[in-house]
Amino acid sequence: MVKFNSNYGNLKESYLFFNIAKKTKAYLEEHPGTHLYRMGIGDVSLPLAKAVIDRLHEAVEDQSRKETFHGYMPETGDPDLREDIREYYSRRGVNLDTGEVFVSSGASDELGDILDLFDRDNTVLIMEPAYPAYVDANVIAGHRIVHLPSGEEDGFAPMPDEKTDADIIYLCSPNNPTGAVFSCEKLKAWVDYAIRHKSLIIFDAAYEAFIEEDLPHSIYEIEGAKSCAIEISSLSKTAGFTGTRCGYTVIPKGITSGDLELNAMWVRNRTTKTNGVSYIIQKGARAVFTEEGQKQIRENIAVYKQNAKVLMKAFDELGIWYCGGKNAPYIWIRCPEGMGSWEFFDRMLNELQIVGTPGEGFGKCGEGYFRFSTFGDPEDTKEAAKRIKKYFS
Amino acid sequence: MVKFNSNYGNLKESYLFFNIAKKTKAYLEEHPGTHLYRMGIGDVSLPLAKAVIDRLHEAVEDQSRKETFHGYMPETGDPDLREDIREYYSRRGVNLDTGEVFVSSGASDELGDILDLFDRDNTVLIMEPAYPAYVDANVIAGHRIVHLPSGEEDGFAPMPDEKTDADIIYLCSPNNPTGAVFSCEKLKAWVDYAIRHKSLIIFDAAYEAFIEEDLPHSIYEIEGAKSCAIEISSLSKTAGFTGTRCGYTVIPKGITSGDLELNAMWVRNRTTKTNGVSYIIQKGARAVFTEEGQKQIRENIAVYKQNAKVLMKAFDELGIWYCGGKNAPYIWIRCPEGMGSWEFFDRMLNELQIVGTPGEGFGKCGEGYFRFSTFGDPEDTKEAAKRIKKYFS
Repeated sequence: MVKFNSNYGNLKESYLFFNIAKKTKAYLEEHPGTHLYRMGIGDVSLPLAKAVIDRLHEAVEDQSRKETFHGYMPETGDPDLREDIREYYSRRGVNLDTGEVFVSSGASDELGDILDLFDRDNTVLIMEPAYPAYVDANVIAGHRIVHLPSGEEDGFAPMPDEKTDADIIYLCSPNNPTGAVFSCEKLKAWVDYAIRHKSLIIFDAAYEAFIEEDLPHSIYEIEGAKSCAIEISSLSKTAGFTGTRCGYTVIPKGITSGDLELNAMWVRNRTTKTNGVSYIIQKGARAVFTEEGQKQIRENIAVYKQNAKVLMKAFDELGIWYCGGKNAPYIWIRCPEGMGSWEFFDRMLNELQIVGTPGEGFGKCGEGYFRFSTFGDPEDTKEAAKRIKKYFS
Repeated sequence: MVKFNSNYGNLKESYLFFNIAKKTKAYLEEHPGTHLYRMGIGDVSLPLAKAVIDRLHEAVEDQSRKETFHGYMPETGDPDLREDIREYYSRRGVNLDTGEVFVSSGASDELGDILDLFDRDNTVLIMEPAYPAYVDANVIAGHRIVHLPSGEEDGFAPMPDEKTDADIIYLCSPNNPTGAVFSCEKLKAWVDYAIRHKSLIIFDAAYEAFIEEDLPHSIYEIEGAKSCAIEISSLSKTAGFTGTRCGYTVIPKGITSGDLELNAMWVRNRTTKTNGVSYIIQKGARAVFTEEGQKQIRENIAVYKQNAKVLMKAFDELGIWYCGGKNAPYIWIRCPEGMGSWEFFDRMLNELQIVGTPGEGFGKCGEGYFRFSTFGDPEDTKEAAKRIKKYFS
């Protein structure tokens, strides 16, 4: 008799986005034709950079002619793209071997698949508020989960607690949903903890391109990290690839346990369980790493950063506490007037026609907070900021 | 301390393609400039159909303008593409619900990921000769593996043995590497076995488009299969998507164990562990299911089928036993003169400059057999057939 993975029975239903959709739909049914200011979604809104579009068209043309047609790609990624990514790291002083860089379909895909490398018998530390899939993927994998709450007192970037024994540690910096960024000192504390406890850090760097202050983009900027950390990143937010799908993962060589070496295990995993990322998409992704591509994606990011400025200015003027925004595409505010997350959501929707994301959906310690995305339309963002300012003054 | 997945230690190194590459390289070093007739690889050689190319260009254009830009796709697939696939099944009498169809990055990706649905405590039956990844993915998942050898006596399409207790059963028809196709009667025997033993069939239908005789394309053509089988298919061989990456998976609703329902589990898995297949690729894939697309992919398949005819004619004239070729892109021959698989490989390479795949690499019972792929260049295939005929006459 086939036995299903009973861990699925331990998954909690996530009502966050479902409830947002339900409430929004109900509002629109009562107020047909109303324009909503959507500051909730973590999806980008600007088109792909021209350099990427040109390369994608070229790649499609390649697939149309026998002489240039590409079949199976290397499972670990196009060697040229892996090299581009290696150079991208090298430009900020992180030296990797090309064999330590893997091309993926994106960070969300990889954050789940990577758990294949680990035994079921592991305790996973997840800092909260957190991207809900961290928890769910680890529930499916049958791991024990320790939740580490964070708050205003640590700027939503908590320090390790020596008493907590975690085998695998999730770190997301810049953080989704809070936009908090770990400083070098804080990251060093986590790397030291991981080395002492022989634990492994899974570093989610999907928002690194939004950092503008002198803060670490990569965990490998921290000494010792190559012995205890995997880094997962993506072009989704960096270059608007949310619907185009391409990312990358770094697994340093030499992380071992007994006879097993993590990098070699992942090579074996990929060659067994995938035939790689689409030739077309990988060729498009290469354009992101050219001088022209970098210039163009920076222009798009600047639009989102301008949205962040508009919102931050409003919150500053209203004296509303927030973090994020400066080095991240998310702004995490303390709901004014002591409101709960969902109470604030309802108020924003019903009174101001603004849709955001209640912080409570990212973990208990997110209650009383609210996430604004800066990926929306600039005109909508300006109008939303104006409405918030007027309403709460 | 982080614990790695110790099952990786149980993986056997696969020397098959490594050895082929090594021997081929050595030959070319000794005989520089020699043209080799490559009949080994399972990769397609013809470009994508024009209908697909046009749609891919359109999709790239969509990504270049704000009004038509697409971000995150539904994790389970573009609803329109799911509907196209549902209709494709319906045209041959298999009625599915659109919610039973999932879009994937291809069969090889899905064959590994799908194991997430099952407990470690399962016995998996793998018919041999087999695609090596079946075994490796199950070793990584920690499943017990039972190998079911097949041979000429059963046409390399074995029947179930009531004494073997298997929880999960891999069926690949048309088969890689043998090209054997299971008849309705044989498939019915397997479905009945699965129902009796409450086991689950994973049916790999990646080569279904090559069937020309009256044989089942889908396991769901067999009564009862919707209660005990998952089907995994791909556009890789159907439409030349090996490097473009798109496939589909059918998980019928209502397959349960206790409180868990397999279709709902897979929805939850996908929404947790992926952000779906690229918008560009899915839009291209939709063209495969149009009348024009179907006509064009049939033209490509006809080229490969002509290759098969050329090779089969040579083997027929030489009186060499083989299966496959007629309803599959592979021809599986018994090596002439009682040669072993690798002995025949060496002879083919050194005497005839032909590269094929030794059957022994697909499991012990493949020893003494050899796989020819029909995906190669037509002129090369003709010359290879001519050389084989001359050499063995």
